[in-house]
Amino acid sequence: MSLFVMKFGGSSVGTTERMQRVARRIIDKKLQGHRVVVVVSAMGDTTDDLIDKSKELTDNPPAREMDMLLTTGEQISVALLAMTIHKLGHEARSFTGWQAGIVTESVHGKARISEITPTRLHAALDAGAIAIVAGFQGMTEDGEITTLGRGGSDTTAVALAAAIRADVCEIYTDVDGIYSTDPRVVANARKLDVISYDEMLELAHLGAAVLHPRAVEYAKHYNVHLVVRSSFNQNEGTLVREEAAMEQGVVVSGIAFDKNVARISIVGVADIPGVLAKIFGALADESIDVDIIVQSGISNGKADFSFTVSLADRARALGVIERVREEVPYDEATFEENLVKVSIVGAGMVSNPGVAAKMFDVISKTGVSIKMVSTSEIKCSCVIAAEPLNEVVRALHTAYGLDTADAAFVGGPQDRR
Amino acid sequence: MSLFVMKFGGSSVGTTERMQRVARRIIDKKLQGHRVVVVVSAMGDTTDDLIDKSKELTDNPPAREMDMLLTTGEQISVALLAMTIHKLGHEARSFTGWQAGIVTESVHGKARISEITPTRLHAALDAGAIAIVAGFQGMTEDGEITTLGRGGSDTTAVALAAAIRADVCEIYTDVDGIYSTDPRVVANARKLDVISYDEMLELAHLGAAVLHPRAVEYAKHYNVHLVVRSSFNQNEGTLVREEAAMEQGVVVSGIAFDKNVARISIVGVADIPGVLAKIFGALADESIDVDIIVQSGISNGKADFSFTVSLADRARALGVIERVREEVPYDEATFEENLVKVSIVGAGMVSNPGVAAKMFDVISKTGVSIKMVSTSEIKCSCVIAAEPLNEVVRALHTAYGLDTADAAFVGGPQDRR
Repeated sequence: MSLFVMKFGGSSVGTTERMQRVARRIIDKKLQGHRVVVVVSAMGDTTDDLIDKSKELTDNPPAREMDMLLTTGEQISVALLAMTIHKLGHEARSFTGWQAGIVTESVHGKARISEITPTRLHAALDAGAIAIVAGFQGMTEDGEITTLGRGGSDTTAVALAAAIRADVCEIYTDVDGIYSTDPRVVANARKLDVISYDEMLELAHLGAAVLHPRAVEYAKHYNVHLVVRSSFNQNEGTLVREEAAMEQGVVVSGIAFDKNVARISIVGVADIPGVLAKIFGALADESIDVDIIVQSGISNGKADFSFTVSLADRARALGVIERVREEVPYDEATFEENLVKVSIVGAGMVSNPGVAAKMFDVISKTGVSIKMVSTSEIKCSCVIAAEPLNEVVRALHTAYGLDTADAAFVGGPQDRR
Repeated sequence: MSLFVMKFGGSSVGTTERMQRVARRIIDKKLQGHRVVVVVSAMGDTTDDLIDKSKELTDNPPAREMDMLLTTGEQISVALLAMTIHKLGHEARSFTGWQAGIVTESVHGKARISEITPTRLHAALDAGAIAIVAGFQGMTEDGEITTLGRGGSDTTAVALAAAIRADVCEIYTDVDGIYSTDPRVVANARKLDVISYDEMLELAHLGAAVLHPRAVEYAKHYNVHLVVRSSFNQNEGTLVREEAAMEQGVVVSGIAFDKNVARISIVGVADIPGVLAKIFGALADESIDVDIIVQSGISNGKADFSFTVSLADRARALGVIERVREEVPYDEATFEENLVKVSIVGAGMVSNPGVAAKMFDVISKTGVSIKMVSTSEIKCSCVIAAEPLNEVVRALHTAYGLDTADAAFVGGPQDRR
């Protein structure tokens, strides 16, 4: 008998039929003799509908009240799922985040879990019931309702799995697992049987939307045995774990890409001490995440910088750059859009010096020029023009030996909550 | 500066415009220098929509999970109302039932409030904020979410008013106050300026749907200064209080009627000891509320009984009667529908012996025969055929001097939650 955490996203429970299928899947696990804790997101469009309701009333709702509003979505899901399981003849008890003992820091909209006291979940399991927990939510020590932000239900599942020492945390989604790249772009993309936390973290950060990075961080930190699999079939899925056994000859595990990229360039920056700290400190103060930073050589006592931010932050970032101009004189600030960041990820890269060079070579052969480069021990990212992205990804996929003939992609939009 | 509890029903906040109007009304109260706690029901059809969702999945949901599901309706209301008030430039904090410190007994679907610890409400008021509490819900000592059943939001408002020692508890509804009878039946029905708790309790029990009986009981028990008034205008409404100052010459304050009546008759019951206890004990065990009970004279060692139940309970009641037949032999059990219970209510009745006789006389003059009679110190009820109900009510209204020329009825369905 093992202890399982099973997490289902909003599209997996979006209709009556899907809710019933998920219920049967959970019951199957129970009938195999396991103890089961389930984490569910809000059904289908529920969250968007609630956001729309708030927008009819205000364009600037207090974060506290948004949390109060949005957490009802998951509460509806857990109640209905518990009813469905009950209807099928099994015991189930639903729990809100606070009832499940999920305590978060005192931040609304994107709180981090600080502690879990799963007393009531253990009591439910001991009574032979399936415990069903609302994802994405928690409570502060003062009893305020909070949400965990994007990918919050993944985080709830992994954090709960760590807290109750679950044997396995299964993330059910609408794809078969983690792919070597997006199967909508590369038809014979390969489903990975196993991947390391670090590789998954890079892929997650780089735009592979199956699993939220924060959930992967939790899993790595608490060494949670994490499986990403389909809620539509019985395929094995992808195991995410500490040290992925390298498949023979595989250096690069996956290729990710992110279209949410804007490049900002600052030309002719006076080369005074602390320039970088001033510019990027001011951006950080505005909570603007900067990704790749490139500084070109200094000439005539002036330097050029460029860096990337998300498209949504582009205008705010330019505003910050304009404001620091008094302190940090420069000639000109410009921006560029219609870009994409393509990345190769693989734990084997660190010991294979030619991997990055090969990437530059493959990209250049497609006739695309590389605008920025960033590397880490297990990834290499290039910022290039957005077109022809698919051709570049396919070329890389083939060049690193990731193509396979038998991969099958189960379509549909991917869950993020 | 006074402390107000203001309660708004679901239809009062059913649309964006109505929500905004309610928000302005609350802010007006605050701007008059008062401290304000607001209780809100679920918006418009939210509760029915949630019930429909559960029905798609099961016809017999666990009561615990229904409470988990339905309490989201009020949580959505309080969050959106707090946002709306915030948008209009004032501080508001929303609270679920458990956050407001409302503790109930461990019963799902119709829990009674056992204790209120309004610490967080006081903190919000002390911080200058408007406190907005989800009606209809609470939490058991074990942290289970419960609902208070029909009329629950009225009860929340009155119980909170008692707990925080509010100066006034205002129940906002879509009528101007408590009327001498249903203005849809009697065009010149009179809005009452004042009514006693006991009279209100009788009227509430007898089908005047403006205020839930349990809320009136709470108000009477804790001597809460209760006002029923319209959310659509600034009229004074009706004050419900301990000793209503009798208006000159008014013996009967109001006329109520209830079409939700079925009469069950048991003919030829063996006159053995404890017969009544056995029959009505068995009905009580099934949670069937029995209203009027009439026993006709005993002849040949046998008695006839009749009693009334709600239409919804009629079939179950007959089943119970059938089951007790072994213990309590009888000749026959029959039922009758298409009945109505008409009642006159007034604190002055007890000292005016001719009041009931006048009622029988007025009804008989309309050509309707009286099937059952029940009296208390402040009311007299007759069960009669459902037609011609309106004629009977109008005749009684005139006979007891309740007609007025200037009454205006603000239409629309009445709130119950």
